[in-house]
Amino acid sequence: MLRMMHEQREAGLARTRPRTAAAAAVAAIAALVASAIFAAEPAAPAAPPPPPPGMADILAAAPASAWRPLDESHTLYLELPAGRVIIELAPAMAPRTVANIETLVRQKYFDGLAVLRVQDNFVAQWGDPEERHKIPEGMQKLPPEFTVPLGANVFTSLPDRDGYAPQVGFVDSFPAARDPASGLAWLAHCYGAVGVGRDTDPASGTGSELYAVIGHAPRQLDRNVTVVGRVRQGIELLSSLPRGTAEMGFYGKAAERTPITSVRLASELPAASRTRLEVLRTDSPTFTALVEARRNRRDEWYQSRAGYIDLCNVPVPVRALHD
Amino acid sequence: MLRMMHEQREAGLARTRPRTAAAAAVAAIAALVASAIFAAEPAAPAAPPPPPPGMADILAAAPASAWRPLDESHTLYLELPAGRVIIELAPAMAPRTVANIETLVRQKYFDGLAVLRVQDNFVAQWGDPEERHKIPEGMQKLPPEFTVPLGANVFTSLPDRDGYAPQVGFVDSFPAARDPASGLAWLAHCYGAVGVGRDTDPASGTGSELYAVIGHAPRQLDRNVTVVGRVRQGIELLSSLPRGTAEMGFYGKAAERTPITSVRLASELPAASRTRLEVLRTDSPTFTALVEARRNRRDEWYQSRAGYIDLCNVPVPVRALHD
Repeated sequence: MLRMMHEQREAGLARTRPRTAAAAAVAAIAALVASAIFAAEPAAPAAPPPPPPGMADILAAAPASAWRPLDESHTLYLELPAGRVIIELAPAMAPRTVANIETLVRQKYFDGLAVLRVQDNFVAQWGDPEERHKIPEGMQKLPPEFTVPLGANVFTSLPDRDGYAPQVGFVDSFPAARDPASGLAWLAHCYGAVGVGRDTDPASGTGSELYAVIGHAPRQLDRNVTVVGRVRQGIELLSSLPRGTAEMGFYGKAAERTPITSVRLASELPAASRTRLEVLRTDSPTFTALVEARRNRRDEWYQSRAGYIDLCNVPVPVRALHD
Repeated sequence: MLRMMHEQREAGLARTRPRTAAAAAVAAIAALVASAIFAAEPAAPAAPPPPPPGMADILAAAPASAWRPLDESHTLYLELPAGRVIIELAPAMAPRTVANIETLVRQKYFDGLAVLRVQDNFVAQWGDPEERHKIPEGMQKLPPEFTVPLGANVFTSLPDRDGYAPQVGFVDSFPAARDPASGLAWLAHCYGAVGVGRDTDPASGTGSELYAVIGHAPRQLDRNVTVVGRVRQGIELLSSLPRGTAEMGFYGKAAERTPITSVRLASELPAASRTRLEVLRTDSPTFTALVEARRNRRDEWYQSRAGYIDLCNVPVPVRALHD
């Protein structure tokens, strides 16, 4: 069984909760329309053209090949008292830093540490608040991976221009940017991006302190921080934490911090303990259709279509697989 | 006494909390640098040029005329159990809708209602979850104010291009957009924007149900909703609420909703009960300097400067006045 998950920010701001039966009926009709769009046969010539599909229709009609499972050997489970935050790492975009983080995770470095900073409209950050846990020898410094050569990775460009980078789009379902002149690419600071906290020294970000973006995309951080991946599920467990009231959103008192139960690689756990997720492939025709549906919202609620979408407003759908 | 307040999203992602003494010393030096920048005398010719000021320096050196008090006759106090959310309305940008809301507030319409929807990375919405409270006669329908003629209002343009609108900038310290060809302007859906929930009928948004943006700017809503103002203080009381788990972030159970103690106009309260705030004037030279300091971050931490800022990343500082 498949169940559609988060990242579906609904268009409507209806005054009240939509009636479930009516909504279901609309969805059923929309699904039929969507399957018509993806069917091979042409529409009957006399029929009026069906309305263009919305995101839900497009996803309902997506072939299995439009999805890929998360890479469980590079997926972290950040276990908080309120539940599991699932972060997919992007080793292609920050190979050494991702390797560092995975080494720390295998050594159970993060277990018992804490979310120590939550700054409104910015980041939730976790690590060792008292700096009591020794970072292993040889891991104290790490050359930054603010950018990487794009190499063999597929870069799917968005059709719209961006103010922060010459080109923006997606690499393996991660929001990214690139500079064709230099051949360099980097992950972009969109909502849910996970980056590596550092001091002024660019080599001071080892991966022992991480943050997730919980506000409007702070794109000015692009190319200033090593971004290592993105929260694929459970960002709301970080974004709804109480904000720290000390400087920069740090918590003034230890008791205010949220303890980290553990951080594990998905592949370390027995199959029964894993959360099986799939993410939409951003190099799929389904994703191309989805981007267009979001650039110009066709549902009746919209009076005005943007004709544009900024990188961090593009949803990258995730779904859970149930046996 | 003046105390600087929120909207100062710090640049750094330091591994640990900055030492307070050191931070204070840096701030003191920076303030001196900033006052030098704003002083009339030229720098001594032999001295190396001082580093360009950052946001804190610019604000520290701002003249009193760069600030204006909130318009208390158009400022709402949304009182929640956790504290006060302060919303400044923009009657120039939505005159009839703002008047409607203020009439409802004077009638104590919102008292005892609830925050009924919190959708992650989107909006927190409040109103009458059971639709039991009658909206007064003649207020059930209201022509939408998605855009307004700009008229005599000062529009301060940002130097950078925007994907969603021909021009973006600020009107009276509210993020806004305009189309010079049509002469129309509208408030933009940045973090903290307050808009009017509506059904598919564009005239169904009366102001009896409102939302605040608590995620990445959903600019596709621009010109589709009447935006009436912005949260000037206390957005974290909305953005840190638990997310609703029903469709579109609605709460499935009444007990999950956050009750609204009351909504009052600041001007209705005795002076001692008001929160006296000032907002930076976006038509001031101080604001121009601030925008440039944010387009190109000069602090040592930054390795790469964006040379760009998007509308919703521009901070609009607010400060509290204490007697």
